[in-house]
Amino acid sequence: MSLAEAPMERRSDIGAEMRVVGRAARSAARRLSRATTVEKNKALAAMAASIRESADVILAENALDLAAAREAKLAGSFLDRLTLTPERIEAMAKGIEEIAALQDPVGAVLAAWDRPNGLHIERVRTPLGVIGVIYESRPNVTADAGALCLKAGNAAILRGGSDSFRSSSAIHACLVAGLKAAALPEEAIQFVPTRDRAAVGLMLTGLEGNIDVIVPRGGKSLVARVQMEARVPVFAHLEGINHVYIDREADLEMAKSIVVNAKMRRTGVCGAAETLLVDARVADRFLKPLIEALQQAGCRVRGDERSRNVVPGVTPAVESDWSTEYLDAIIAVKVVDGVKDAIDHIERYGSHHTDAIVTNDKRTAQRFMAEVDSAIVLHNASTQFADGGEFGMGAEIGIATGRMHARGPVGVEQLTSFKYRVTGNGQIRP
Amino acid sequence: MSLAEAPMERRSDIGAEMRVVGRAARSAARRLSRATTVEKNKALAAMAASIRESADVILAENALDLAAAREAKLAGSFLDRLTLTPERIEAMAKGIEEIAALQDPVGAVLAAWDRPNGLHIERVRTPLGVIGVIYESRPNVTADAGALCLKAGNAAILRGGSDSFRSSSAIHACLVAGLKAAALPEEAIQFVPTRDRAAVGLMLTGLEGNIDVIVPRGGKSLVARVQMEARVPVFAHLEGINHVYIDREADLEMAKSIVVNAKMRRTGVCGAAETLLVDARVADRFLKPLIEALQQAGCRVRGDERSRNVVPGVTPAVESDWSTEYLDAIIAVKVVDGVKDAIDHIERYGSHHTDAIVTNDKRTAQRFMAEVDSAIVLHNASTQFADGGEFGMGAEIGIATGRMHARGPVGVEQLTSFKYRVTGNGQIRP
Repeated sequence: MSLAEAPMERRSDIGAEMRVVGRAARSAARRLSRATTVEKNKALAAMAASIRESADVILAENALDLAAAREAKLAGSFLDRLTLTPERIEAMAKGIEEIAALQDPVGAVLAAWDRPNGLHIERVRTPLGVIGVIYESRPNVTADAGALCLKAGNAAILRGGSDSFRSSSAIHACLVAGLKAAALPEEAIQFVPTRDRAAVGLMLTGLEGNIDVIVPRGGKSLVARVQMEARVPVFAHLEGINHVYIDREADLEMAKSIVVNAKMRRTGVCGAAETLLVDARVADRFLKPLIEALQQAGCRVRGDERSRNVVPGVTPAVESDWSTEYLDAIIAVKVVDGVKDAIDHIERYGSHHTDAIVTNDKRTAQRFMAEVDSAIVLHNASTQFADGGEFGMGAEIGIATGRMHARGPVGVEQLTSFKYRVTGNGQIRP
Repeated sequence: MSLAEAPMERRSDIGAEMRVVGRAARSAARRLSRATTVEKNKALAAMAASIRESADVILAENALDLAAAREAKLAGSFLDRLTLTPERIEAMAKGIEEIAALQDPVGAVLAAWDRPNGLHIERVRTPLGVIGVIYESRPNVTADAGALCLKAGNAAILRGGSDSFRSSSAIHACLVAGLKAAALPEEAIQFVPTRDRAAVGLMLTGLEGNIDVIVPRGGKSLVARVQMEARVPVFAHLEGINHVYIDREADLEMAKSIVVNAKMRRTGVCGAAETLLVDARVADRFLKPLIEALQQAGCRVRGDERSRNVVPGVTPAVESDWSTEYLDAIIAVKVVDGVKDAIDHIERYGSHHTDAIVTNDKRTAQRFMAEVDSAIVLHNASTQFADGGEFGMGAEIGIATGRMHARGPVGVEQLTSFKYRVTGNGQIRP
């Protein structure tokens, strides 16, 4: 990972260089704050076109990154994320066009009211300002993140994993071409011009107040470091330790299909379920078919003592299983005494990401959804719906599990702030 | 100030004590998250009643605080803020009743939509969790802050200035009585049980993740320390360096009354104007009457060179004047070349709090309100309207100048978060 490796080059004064980046971003952000929807969409369309036209260049740069990565004996999964293909490049271009098609959040009047003294007050959506995005060696994030920030009227400072430095630089050049085509400042989307990992530490300080929020995109270690060191707000989620609770009033067939989908559709996504909780009242009837369905889908099961009493032969779960994000075909199973016990378990071991209840009892579902303090709570649906696209928000930059500002899928609307606009005709305060 | 003084007592293990406070707050917050409007309002009404009944006790404790403060030779303004009277106690009780009368923000559905697959998605307002309030020796803040946090379904950890320890403790006892009367957990509003200033540092660490946001209420030094040391999000504003810009298209009479009101109605509030910017095009006609109106109202004026060329005899302004929050009957005056120059000055020296333009040109006003990146921008109205009550939001805990989560007046709605509630009938993701 970019943050763990030794820098491949050293700039004479990276601090001065990053300060320049920060100031340029701030002044670009001011221009963007009054950019029209037409201007922003023109830039996005030109970015997509430029990415398509430059496919060969991007692939050539990517080949150089890949060669270096292979030489460095990096893991296969790492190489896969780093690899670009004509299809992946087309997907990047399409992704930018989809972002262009989203409604412009900036300028939307969120609320408006009149005061007895005649003052008219409006709460208006504004850009956040300058967003620092720190990600690993996934070149496509350069395009997604840059386009999302622009759509919301924000300037972006992108710092990608240094193993994708050439690929990301080539993609960034296309974003800049798009900005130029719309006569928007090139500094609206900057790519940190060095592999020096000191740049990350500098971004986390906020660059003299010129970065308003940091968005880390990547694995646990990256997000954890960012959350620990950042001196500016962070939109991040550490992990998705998500639960599916099967209540006594659940329909068994629905429970089976939801649990298998929540765990196995894709095991590597943050919305994947990691723990299955089953109401003791139905453990005798439900546990065996649920566990068999999971096993038939290729999932390994670890059970607590009570579940192993019902389904012998299941591998014993240990304490650490309840707080592990497997991101793999493994699930921990626990028998709980009703919804209250399920909520207690989730609040103790969960990560406030996404949790689901399966039940036909509306009041039990309401209690679960009210008391489980997670960004997303679902009733009779799979946790794998935890996704900005599935929510109809369009592209997302990630899913936030904090309670501040952005929570859940972070799309263009979540990348904005607001201000109060007050119009009068000479009012003074008595 | 509480943060600057030496501790008057030392607990054996304040760390352990504060950890207990944090855990108790978190569990109280969970109970509050499902407290009904009726329960919360019952508690608030009982708090107000208890404060009225306990007026004598509160005054007696306050007298002890005052005696100690006088002995410590604390300043008169400090003593005034510390002093309680029957009127101030009645105002506290009334304030709590006004908060009870506010609409309950929790549970409000902020948005709701259906997906093609039949999923019903709701964005629902939730409490933030546990709010740490750090304030100086103003006993009334104990009542305001505790009541506001409760109305929004949050647990509160209150740490008041140690010179008001007895007064605040007595007020806090009334809040607890109110919680009991409504059968809500007493730990929902905790008052840090020690004068030891180490408690503040511990709160800024978040107490093992048991404080979700810190709200500092007090002077610059307190807010600055909190912003610098806090490891959890902070709702704060450092200062209100607010501007009034008089445009070439302004009406002179309106300009005079707005400038005098913005500066002089109350000079000690954060919404007070500190700098007057006048369009060069009208400087010859407007500057003299504007400055005379201010001087007649008892305001001292410091002018830049261009304004002193028009109105000789004005004290020269120095560079530091443009970034000084006087909170006093002093104003800095500068001649600028139109709205763009005014915006540039505000962005360079302002504090993103509250800024106003006086003009009859709608397009100039729109540009000013779009490009001035402040929490509150006004057109033809006084900056002194920067107040939650004047906005119709009811009581506020302060005015935030950051762009994250809360901006502008921080009332009950701004003390909430949200979650996504997804309801299905067995949907799984393909």
